[in-house]
Amino acid sequence: MKAVVNVYLKEGVLDPQGKATRHALESLGFKNVKEVRIGKQIVLDLEAKDKEEALKEVEQMSETLLANTVIEDYDIEIKE
Amino acid sequence: MKAVVNVYLKEGVLDPQGKATRHALESLGFKNVKEVRIGKQIVLDLEAKDKEEALKEVEQMSETLLANTVIEDYDIEIKE
Repeated sequence: MKAVVNVYLKEGVLDPQGKATRHALESLGFKNVKEVRIGKQIVLDLEAKDKEEALKEVEQMSETLLANTVIEDYDIEIKE
Repeated sequence: MKAVVNVYLKEGVLDPQGKATRHALESLGFKNVKEVRIGKQIVLDLEAKDKEEALKEVEQMSETLLANTVIEDYDIEIKE
């Protein structure tokens, strides 16, 4: 089973990597970009009985390791 | 307009960050994880006339800056 976890900075948390990317895009001629935010996309291949079990387990992984919940939010998508 | 660019390593390219994450998950008790791959999710806020124009521009950004197309693939989703 495949699970995709998107981890991104909470609103209000500064994103210097995104800011640098916006500036780089601007200097390359892409003037229409107002904001860039950069997050992580974590793709897991895991064994699980069903989608519910997989979701529960990936939630635990996200809370304990994959995301820093002080500054980051995440969403999870379970695929077949 | 919002654009989401997912940048991920091509198949066959080693992912040491993913491997380290898999080991960390295993040592935390998550034994069912077979593989972890870690990519970037870049969220852009940009001005564009329509979705086609936005997609074209974000494709150019991805080719020139956001992805290293030697080792990475990307997909683009344009949202309202």
